[in-house]
Amino acid sequence: MVLWKKQLNMQKELLDFLNKDNCEADEKLLPFDCEISLAYCKALHQAGIISLEELRKLEGCLNDLRNNALGGSVRILPEEEDSHTKIEEHLIMQLGATGKKIHLGKSRNDQSLAAVRMFSKKMLAETIKEIGKLIQILYGMAEKYEGVPMPGYTHMRKAMPTTFGYWCAGIAESFENDLEILKMAFKQNDSCPLGTAAGYGSPLDLNWKEIALDLGFSRTEANGIHAQNSRGKDGALTCFALLQVMLDINKLATDLMLWGTEEYGFIGLPDKLTTGSSIMPHKKNPDALELLRAKAAKVHACAFHISQLSLNLPSGYNRDMQETKKPLIEAFETTLASVAIAMLVLENIAVNEEKLKNSVTEDMHSAAKASKLALNGIPFRDAYLQIKKP
Amino acid sequence: MVLWKKQLNMQKELLDFLNKDNCEADEKLLPFDCEISLAYCKALHQAGIISLEELRKLEGCLNDLRNNALGGSVRILPEEEDSHTKIEEHLIMQLGATGKKIHLGKSRNDQSLAAVRMFSKKMLAETIKEIGKLIQILYGMAEKYEGVPMPGYTHMRKAMPTTFGYWCAGIAESFENDLEILKMAFKQNDSCPLGTAAGYGSPLDLNWKEIALDLGFSRTEANGIHAQNSRGKDGALTCFALLQVMLDINKLATDLMLWGTEEYGFIGLPDKLTTGSSIMPHKKNPDALELLRAKAAKVHACAFHISQLSLNLPSGYNRDMQETKKPLIEAFETTLASVAIAMLVLENIAVNEEKLKNSVTEDMHSAAKASKLALNGIPFRDAYLQIKKP
Amino acid sequence: MVLWKKQLNMQKELLDFLNKDNCEADEKLLPFDCEISLAYCKALHQAGIISLEELRKLEGCLNDLRNNALGGSVRILPEEEDSHTKIEEHLIMQLGATGKKIHLGKSRNDQSLAAVRMFSKKMLAETIKEIGKLIQILYGMAEKYEGVPMPGYTHMRKAMPTTFGYWCAGIAESFENDLEILKMAFKQNDSCPLGTAAGYGSPLDLNWKEIALDLGFSRTEANGIHAQNSRGKDGALTCFALLQVMLDINKLATDLMLWGTEEYGFIGLPDKLTTGSSIMPHKKNPDALELLRAKAAKVHACAFHISQLSLNLPSGYNRDMQETKKPLIEAFETTLASVAIAMLVLENIAVNEEKLKNSVTEDMHSAAKASKLALNGIPFRDAYLQIKKP
Amino acid sequence: MVLWKKQLNMQKELLDFLNKDNCEADEKLLPFDCEISLAYCKALHQAGIISLEELRKLEGCLNDLRNNALGGSVRILPEEEDSHTKIEEHLIMQLGATGKKIHLGKSRNDQSLAAVRMFSKKMLAETIKEIGKLIQILYGMAEKYEGVPMPGYTHMRKAMPTTFGYWCAGIAESFENDLEILKMAFKQNDSCPLGTAAGYGSPLDLNWKEIALDLGFSRTEANGIHAQNSRGKDGALTCFALLQVMLDINKLATDLMLWGTEEYGFIGLPDKLTTGSSIMPHKKNPDALELLRAKAAKVHACAFHISQLSLNLPSGYNRDMQETKKPLIEAFETTLASVAIAMLVLENIAVNEEKLKNSVTEDMHSAAKASKLALNGIPFRDAYLQIKKP
Repeated sequence: MVLWKKQLNMQKELLDFLNKDNCEADEKLLPFDCEISLAYCKALHQAGIISLEELRKLEGCLNDLRNNALGGSVRILPEEEDSHTKIEEHLIMQLGATGKKIHLGKSRNDQSLAAVRMFSKKMLAETIKEIGKLIQILYGMAEKYEGVPMPGYTHMRKAMPTTFGYWCAGIAESFENDLEILKMAFKQNDSCPLGTAAGYGSPLDLNWKEIALDLGFSRTEANGIHAQNSRGKDGALTCFALLQVMLDINKLATDLMLWGTEEYGFIGLPDKLTTGSSIMPHKKNPDALELLRAKAAKVHACAFHISQLSLNLPSGYNRDMQETKKPLIEAFETTLASVAIAMLVLENIAVNEEKLKNSVTEDMHSAAKASKLALNGIPFRDAYLQIKKP
Repeated sequence: MVLWKKQLNMQKELLDFLNKDNCEADEKLLPFDCEISLAYCKALHQAGIISLEELRKLEGCLNDLRNNALGGSVRILPEEEDSHTKIEEHLIMQLGATGKKIHLGKSRNDQSLAAVRMFSKKMLAETIKEIGKLIQILYGMAEKYEGVPMPGYTHMRKAMPTTFGYWCAGIAESFENDLEILKMAFKQNDSCPLGTAAGYGSPLDLNWKEIALDLGFSRTEANGIHAQNSRGKDGALTCFALLQVMLDINKLATDLMLWGTEEYGFIGLPDKLTTGSSIMPHKKNPDALELLRAKAAKVHACAFHISQLSLNLPSGYNRDMQETKKPLIEAFETTLASVAIAMLVLENIAVNEEKLKNSVTEDMHSAAKASKLALNGIPFRDAYLQIKKP
Repeated sequence: MVLWKKQLNMQKELLDFLNKDNCEADEKLLPFDCEISLAYCKALHQAGIISLEELRKLEGCLNDLRNNALGGSVRILPEEEDSHTKIEEHLIMQLGATGKKIHLGKSRNDQSLAAVRMFSKKMLAETIKEIGKLIQILYGMAEKYEGVPMPGYTHMRKAMPTTFGYWCAGIAESFENDLEILKMAFKQNDSCPLGTAAGYGSPLDLNWKEIALDLGFSRTEANGIHAQNSRGKDGALTCFALLQVMLDINKLATDLMLWGTEEYGFIGLPDKLTTGSSIMPHKKNPDALELLRAKAAKVHACAFHISQLSLNLPSGYNRDMQETKKPLIEAFETTLASVAIAMLVLENIAVNEEKLKNSVTEDMHSAAKASKLALNGIPFRDAYLQIKKP
Repeated sequence: MVLWKKQLNMQKELLDFLNKDNCEADEKLLPFDCEISLAYCKALHQAGIISLEELRKLEGCLNDLRNNALGGSVRILPEEEDSHTKIEEHLIMQLGATGKKIHLGKSRNDQSLAAVRMFSKKMLAETIKEIGKLIQILYGMAEKYEGVPMPGYTHMRKAMPTTFGYWCAGIAESFENDLEILKMAFKQNDSCPLGTAAGYGSPLDLNWKEIALDLGFSRTEANGIHAQNSRGKDGALTCFALLQVMLDINKLATDLMLWGTEEYGFIGLPDKLTTGSSIMPHKKNPDALELLRAKAAKVHACAFHISQLSLNLPSGYNRDMQETKKPLIEAFETTLASVAIAMLVLENIAVNEEKLKNSVTEDMHSAAKASKLALNGIPFRDAYLQIKKP
C-alpha cells in the first residue's frame, strides 16, 4: 500500500518500471533517510506538533530501521514505492496515528535530495580518505625509487632520462589535485534542502538551520526551485570529480600494462595478481590492471548519464531525476573499489631496476648535450642542429 | 576452484573486482553458453575426440544446466570466475575425465563472443517483434484519429493545422525506420566466431560452418583478430540501434507530457497510470511518461560506455572488453521494458478531441491563404507579405 | 535583408548567435540547396506556376550560384540568414517577380533536411569508395606478409603465433564490416522530404516522386512529423556509422604506435612521416599515428553532440536541430582525412620482418602442445596442466 | 620552414592533417605564447644567457607580434607548424642568432600547456564576470516580480503557488553555485608548468617561481609527468565547469520556451528577438531561446571530447593532447555568447502578470489546506486523505 492510495491497481509491469531500480538505489539511501526523519521528528516536537512520548517512540522505530538498513537486511519492494513511503508506512504500522504525523511540512522531493546529498558527502569523504592512503603509498615509492633511472617518454618514444621515483611522484601529485575537486564536490553537496518541500517552500516554520546542523550540513538551501534544479547538476558534478580520479587510475594502469609487457619488462606482477588462460598454459594475464584501466569508462558513462538527464526539462521536480541515483551510486562504488585495487597492485608490483636503468639509451641525452653547448655560447638552435647532424 | 588454478589464493576483494559484475552478466548468458558447448561437443564427437556415449552424457548435463539457467536458478560466484569456467567445472565434477575434454580447440575468447552475439540476436529479434506491436497500435490510432484536427507546431509555436492521426502515423513511421537499423545490428551479430579461439585460430580442424549453423548463425568469422576487435564495436552498434528506438520513445513521451499539462489539455491519463504526491492531495502525476522520457539517457549512456571502452587499446582480446556485457544487457532490458510501457500508455490515454479541434486557431491558415493567393497569380513572396501585413 | 523582414533591427551579437555557425555549415550545403531549387522550379513549371521562360532564367541563375558555391567562392553572412534565404534573395535581386515565386509550396524545413540528406549521401558514397581503397591496400599487405610470423597477443601479453599478414587481413575485415553500416546509413538518408513543407504537408500537389528522382533519392517521405523528428536521429546514425570506421582506424594506429616503439621495433616510419622535437635533436615522432588514433574521439563527440540535441524536445521542427549540421560535417571531414592519412601511413611503413619473427617465443606454442597431447588421448584439461607444470 | 627541418618534404595533405586545426587554435593562444616568451627571455637574461641589448630587441619583436595577434591579424599556416615554431622562426628571421637562443631550457610541451592555462584563466575570469552581471539582472527581476503569483510545477503539472520572482531568484542561485565551480577550475589552471620542459625537467636552473609570477600564476608545477598528464583532465574539468553554467542556461531557456507558448502565455518576446517563417506569415519564432537551450549540448560534447582523449594513453606528452585545444576554445566561446544572449533575452521579455496570477488554480492550495488541518491536530496523513476525498 502507498500513501496516496493509487498504486493499488497498478500492473506489476508498470510498478517495476516505475520503482524497481529506484528501490534498489533507495536501499542504499535508507539509513540517511532514517536520519533525516529522526532530525525532522525532533524539530516537529520542538514545534509542538508531536509530543515527547511520540518522539521517543518514533526515534525507537527509526533507529531500529536505520540499523537494519545499515546491516543490509532491509529490502524495498516496487509496491512499497520508495524509501520515504517505506519509512512512513513502517511508522504507521508500528505506531498508528503518531506515524501519520511525520510528513507534515516536508515533501519527498526535499527529503530525497537531502538523502542523496548526505550519501554523497559520506562517500566523498571516504573516497578522499582512501585516496590519501594511495598518495602515501605513491610517495613512499617515489622516495624508494628516487635513484632508479628509467627512460622518460614523449609520443611513446624515448625522450629524456628520468627516474621511476619521479613517475611515482607525478602520479601522486595528480591524485592530490583530484582531492581539491572532490572537496569542491563535497562543498556543493553540503547544503540542506529540507524546508523547500516540493520546491516551493514548506507550510511549516521549523528551525531549518538546526535541522541542517543536526544532519551534518553546513548550510541550508534558500530557494526550492534552485534546490530541485540542482539534482542533475549536482550528481553530474560529483561523478565528474570521481572521473578525475578514475582518469589518474587509468593512467597508472595504462603505464603499468605497457611496462609489464615482455617487450618493456619494467615491472612484474606476482602470481596472486594475475589470472590464467583457459587454453594457453603459459599465460599470466594482468587482468587487475586491465580492469583498473577499463573502469574510467564506467564512471565516465555515469557522469554522462546524469548530465544529460536534465537537458531540456523545465524547472521543478521531474521524475526523470530519480534516474540520477543509480549511476551516482555506481560511480562511487566503482571508484572506491578501483582505489583499493590500485593500492593492492602498487604494493605488490616488482620493479625491475636493472631493466629500467639499462633502457636509458645514449641518444636520450641529446637535449642535455645541446643545452650544454648553448650554455657555452652557441645559440641553442644551432647547438640543436649540431647535435642532430651526426 | 578454477581451471588454471590461480585464483585459489586471490583476495576476496580482488576476486570481486575482477569477476562480480561479469558473473552477474554471465548468468544471463549462461543458457547460450550451454548451447555453444552442446554444439561444440557434437562437433568434437564427429571429429572422433569424444565417444557417442560421452556425448550423450555431456548433452544430458548441459541440457540440465541450461534449463536451470533459463529457470533463473543458477548463480555464478566470483570464485567460479565466469560462465565458461562454471560449465567446465560442472562437467568435470559430474563426468570426470569426459568433462576435461571439452575445451580442446576453443578459447573463452571465442566462446564468450559467440554467447554475446547469440544473446544479442535473441534480444534484437524480441525487440523487433515488440516494436512491431507498438507500430500496429500507433497505426490503429492513426486511423481512428485521422479526422481529428489539432495544431501542428514548429518552434513549439502553433504553425499549421494537422490531425492527431497524422501525429500517430508519424511516430509509427519513425519506429518503422528503427526496424531497419535493428535488423542491420542483427546482421552484424549473425556471424559465428567459434574456430578463432583466442584470436589466432584453433589447433583443431572442426566443421566450423556446421557448428555455426547448429547455433543459428548464418555465417562464420574468418579472422580471429577481426573477431576480437569487434567486441566494443558490435556492442556499441547494438546499443546505438536501441538508442534510435529510445529516441522515438522519448519523443512520444515528451509530446504526451506536454499535451497532458493543464495548459494544453490535449490528452489525459487514467488513474491507474498516474501516481500521487506525498504532500499535495490533488496531484495526479504522469510518472510513467516521465520515466519513458528519461530512459533514452540510460541507453545513450550504455552506448557511450561501450564505444569508449576499446579506444586506444591494441588488437587482440583485452579484459576491458568484459565491461561491454553489462551495459549491453541493461540497454536491452531498458528498451524492452520501455516499449512495453509505451504500449500500455498508448492503449490507455484519453484523447480530448474537442480541445484538440478548438486549439486550431485562425492564423494557422496563413500559409494556406498565401499559397492560395500565389496560385491565383501573385508571386508567393508578395502574397506572403500581403497576408502578413494585417 | 531577409524574407520575413524581421532581422533588420536585430543586434549584430544576436544575429551572430543565431546564424554564424549555421551559415558556415550552409556554405557547404549550398550546392545541394541549389540543386533542390533547380528540381523544384522544374516541378513548379510542370504545374503551370512558372513559365518556361521563367524556368530557363531561374535555371541560369541557380546553375551559376551552384557553380560558384562548388568553387568555394560564395560566403553566406549572418545577416543573410541561411542558404535558403540567400538563394531566394539572390533570385529576387536577379530576376524580380520571378524569384518571388519559387518558395510556393515548400518550407525551409523540408528544404534544409533534403540538403543535409543529399550532402550525407554524397559524403557517405565517397567514404565508402575511399575505404574500399584502404581495404585493397590492407589485403595487398595481407598477401605480401602472409608468411611473416609474429606474436599474437591477448591481454597485451604474448599468446600464440600469428603472422603480420593475418593482422592486415583482420583489420581489412573490420573495415569491410563498416561498409555495411555505412550503406545502411546511406539508405536511411535516401528518402526525399520535399512535400512535407514545415512538417504538416504542402498546399501544392506537385509530383513529389519525380522531384525526388530528379535529386537522386530512391523514395519520398510520407509523413512530415516523422521527417522533421528524424533530424537528430539521422545525423546521429550517420556519425555513428563513421565512428565505427574511426574505431578501426584507432585500432590500426594504436597497434602501429605500440609496434613502432623502440621496445617492440616491429615497424618503422620513414622520415617524411615523422616530426621532430623542439628540444631533443634525436627525436622522430610518429605524430601522424597519434592523430589518427586521436580522431576517433572527435567523431565520437560529434555523434554524441547530435544524439543528445533532440532529447526531451517535442515533435516538429525546433531550431535546436540547426546545431546538428556542423558536427555532421566535421565528422565526415575528419573521417575522410583520416582514411587518406591511414592509407599514406600503410603505404610507407617499413615492416621489420626479422624482428617480428624473432619475437615469437617458445612458450607461445603451449596451447598447440597441449592440444597435440589431447589429440593423442589425454583429456585436454589434463594436457593443459601437464604443459603448464614445468 | 620548421625548426627541426623535417616538414620540408611533407605532403600538403599530411601537413593539414597534423597542423591545420591546431594552427587555428594557436592563433587564439598566440598572445599568451608571446607573453610566455617575454617572461622567459627576461629570465634568460637574468641567467646571463642573453644580453640586455638582445633582451630589448626580443621584447620589441615579441610585443609587436603579440599586439598583431591580439588585433587578429596573424595567421599561422600548417607549414609553420604551431605558435611556438612561428614565434621562434619570426625571431630568427628578425634578429638572427639572438632568435636562436630563446628555446634553451624549455620545450613546446611546457610552453603549450602554459599558454592553454593562461588562456583558460583569462576566459574563466571573463565568464565569472559576465555571469555576475547575469545574476544581478536575475536578482533585479526577483525583486521586481516578488509579488507576482504564478503556479509552481512538479512533474510538469500544477503543484503549489509560487511567484515569478521566486523563479528568478532560484535561477540566480544556480548561477551563483556555478561561480564556485568556475573558481575551482580557475585554481586548477593557476599553476605554471614552465621548467618541466618536455615533461622531465629543464637542463636550466632558472627562477621558475619568478617566471610564474610574471605570468600571473600563483604557483609552479613541481613534476613534469603530472603536468603533462594533466592536459586532458584540466581541459575536461574546465569544460565541465562551463557545462554547469550551460545547464542553467538550458533550464532558463526551457522554462521560457514553455511559458512563451500560446497555451501558457506567461511571457512574450519583443519582435526584435523573434524570427519569422519562410512560409507561414503569422509566425514569430523564439529562435534565440531555442539556441540558448541547444548550446548546452555543444559544451557537453566538448567536455566529453576532451575527457575521452587521454583514455588508455600512457604518461608523457602524446600528440593526441593537441586535440584538446579546439573543443576547449569552442566551449568558452559558446558559453560567453550564451551568457550574453541570456542577458539580452531577460532584459527584453514581457512578463504577463495577469496571466500568471490567473493560472494559480484553487486545487494548488491542497497541501496548505491539509497542513492547516494537521496543525489543528489531525495527523497529517489523515488530513491529506480528507482533503483528497472530495
